[in-house]
Amino acid sequence: MGDRLSTTFAALADPTRRAILARLALGESSVLKLAEPFDISLPAISKHLKVLERAGLITRTRDAQMRPCRIDAKALKEADDWLEEYRRLWEERLDRLDDYLRVLQAQEKQDDKQSKPVKQRKREKQRGDKK
Amino acid sequence: MGDRLSTTFAALADPTRRAILARLALGESSVLKLAEPFDISLPAISKHLKVLERAGLITRTRDAQMRPCRIDAKALKEADDWLEEYRRLWEERLDRLDDYLRVLQAQEKQDDKQSKPVKQRKREKQRGDKK
Repeated sequence: MGDRLSTTFAALADPTRRAILARLALGESSVLKLAEPFDISLPAISKHLKVLERAGLITRTRDAQMRPCRIDAKALKEADDWLEEYRRLWEERLDRLDDYLRVLQAQEKQDDKQSKPVKQRKREKQRGDKK
Repeated sequence: MGDRLSTTFAALADPTRRAILARLALGESSVLKLAEPFDISLPAISKHLKVLERAGLITRTRDAQMRPCRIDAKALKEADDWLEEYRRLWEERLDRLDDYLRVLQAQEKQDDKQSKPVKQRKREKQRGDKK
């Protein structure tokens, strides 16, 4: 699996190939239709498709004349599973930030409580003065 | 960001670099300690570290003599965010499988209900015969 993962990440390391995957996530497409939005030659697109196919990120129907390309989620899921192990790194960081904000809010409330009696005492004192 | 993502994926496309990240996910480490489990030269490890550093996947303290390496979650999070867009592809597939299993279970229950009266009728018939 180690090498498969390397092939997947290498295939994802190109903006055109990622754009092709984004298009195929919406549904299958012929090579000609896939090439339309890109300002590169058809052979260049075919090369990118071969890299994606070798990485198992797309499949192409062999027998059909149109040979439509389809996204294959399996390799993407493997890359996602690998990254999942690291998710705790930023999730823990966000949790720590959350904890810190909660402490700040608790302190603010505490300050409010402590300052109220002082104000109240002042008001009561003022009322007393007026009497 | 497009190019940054390409650099990140390219840096992840190597088993040794992924192993270095797995080690650093446990805590910061010096280059010497990082190199220990690997059967490759120190310059080769340094090269891998440079690739990881350029991709923003690790940081190294400049002024300290030990120059400990530390994992930096930001670039990993960006790669994870990109993959998140595709997560629905396999989650939907799992949902469909779930729905299918639920239909099968519902059918089984239906079959059970329909077969029970037959058995009951048989048992009642047998009891009647014994009388």
